[in-house]
Amino acid sequence: MSHRRLTQMLGYEFRDPEILERALTHRSASSGHNERMEFLGDGLLNGIVGELLFHRCPKATEGDLSRLRASLVREESLAVIGSALKLGDEMNLGSGELKSGGFRRASILADAVEALIAAVYLDGGFEQTRAMLARVFEDRLNNLPDPASLKDAKTRLQELLQAQARPRPEYGVERVEGPPHKQRFHVHCRLPDSDEIEQAEGSSRRIAEQRAAQLMIDRLEP
Amino acid sequence: MSHRRLTQMLGYEFRDPEILERALTHRSASSGHNERMEFLGDGLLNGIVGELLFHRCPKATEGDLSRLRASLVREESLAVIGSALKLGDEMNLGSGELKSGGFRRASILADAVEALIAAVYLDGGFEQTRAMLARVFEDRLNNLPDPASLKDAKTRLQELLQAQARPRPEYGVERVEGPPHKQRFHVHCRLPDSDEIEQAEGSSRRIAEQRAAQLMIDRLEP
Repeated sequence: MSHRRLTQMLGYEFRDPEILERALTHRSASSGHNERMEFLGDGLLNGIVGELLFHRCPKATEGDLSRLRASLVREESLAVIGSALKLGDEMNLGSGELKSGGFRRASILADAVEALIAAVYLDGGFEQTRAMLARVFEDRLNNLPDPASLKDAKTRLQELLQAQARPRPEYGVERVEGPPHKQRFHVHCRLPDSDEIEQAEGSSRRIAEQRAAQLMIDRLEP
Repeated sequence: MSHRRLTQMLGYEFRDPEILERALTHRSASSGHNERMEFLGDGLLNGIVGELLFHRCPKATEGDLSRLRASLVREESLAVIGSALKLGDEMNLGSGELKSGGFRRASILADAVEALIAAVYLDGGFEQTRAMLARVFEDRLNNLPDPASLKDAKTRLQELLQAQARPRPEYGVERVEGPPHKQRFHVHCRLPDSDEIEQAEGSSRRIAEQRAAQLMIDRLEP
């Protein structure tokens, strides 16, 4: 396959087309697949998007930069990029994945985006990779979300209480129900100075605590 | 401070000494501290150590590469590097941190190593940073652990069972005890084909499950 449309969208022309072909080969199609390249691309993506944010947001704190980066490089975001690059049409997938529509699966698209980043690095080096990522992420970097909106509920609740000089909330598991693999965690979030309590449940302690924290925020900020 | 010994150990001479000074400034000492540089250095470290491993270990799977990288860049490993570089003697710390021995704290040393990586990048660019990290990690890259030894107990148990064509183990929380913030999770690990059970407890579900898995491994591999 020539992949001309893809390389035009990336703004990068490969010297060695085999590197690109490998980046587009899912493990279901061949032993010459892209999984090691995914690993390489994932690390470079974190480093380079971090650097782009570092320069783009000179006032952002370390925490804000971390949250912004996490929002840009998470699987869903990469899958949207993979979709826009129409990677589903360019990938080499085994017949099982093809039949089951694997080319539309978020994880396969996101992994292929990471492998593509590695391919540009292996073929063209760091500066070419950085330039390609600056292009691919340009719109997103120009329209960054408010970092505060990316904070999780437990963090937001803690900051809300801190701003009112109130003590930290307490979380506790009340009970765990259901058979293994389908257990439900029932937790509470309690404000020690007022004894206000919110309860929530979820498939993990973490999820249940986030829900309870959100309920407490809703109670405090009606 | 001239930091001549430090730059000799790093094998990198800074054009702008202020960048190095900032990398060595903890938030307890000045508003011109190194926290944003930590963020930048952490991402570059992951990307570059990943690339060094990618080339060093051409047969390693993605999972092995991930485990090897995690072992090289975790806080304890970076603190050892910070100690060897004698960063405690070179850092700018506030009086509180100085009195409490903060210069010996693993987290402060590890964060300063990350900030140093950012400093080399901002001052000298990617290739200089890569060369410096290849030097700093040279011994560790020449003496990599067996990736299998880095797997956690749940993973090792699952692979052990898989090799014997046995079904996956089941984990379940039996009960949660204690006041909030000091809760103990009691869990079991059960083999569904033989009804063998091991129980363990811990301060989180994850920790307790890892312990129960290790007990089950000990039972199966006496």
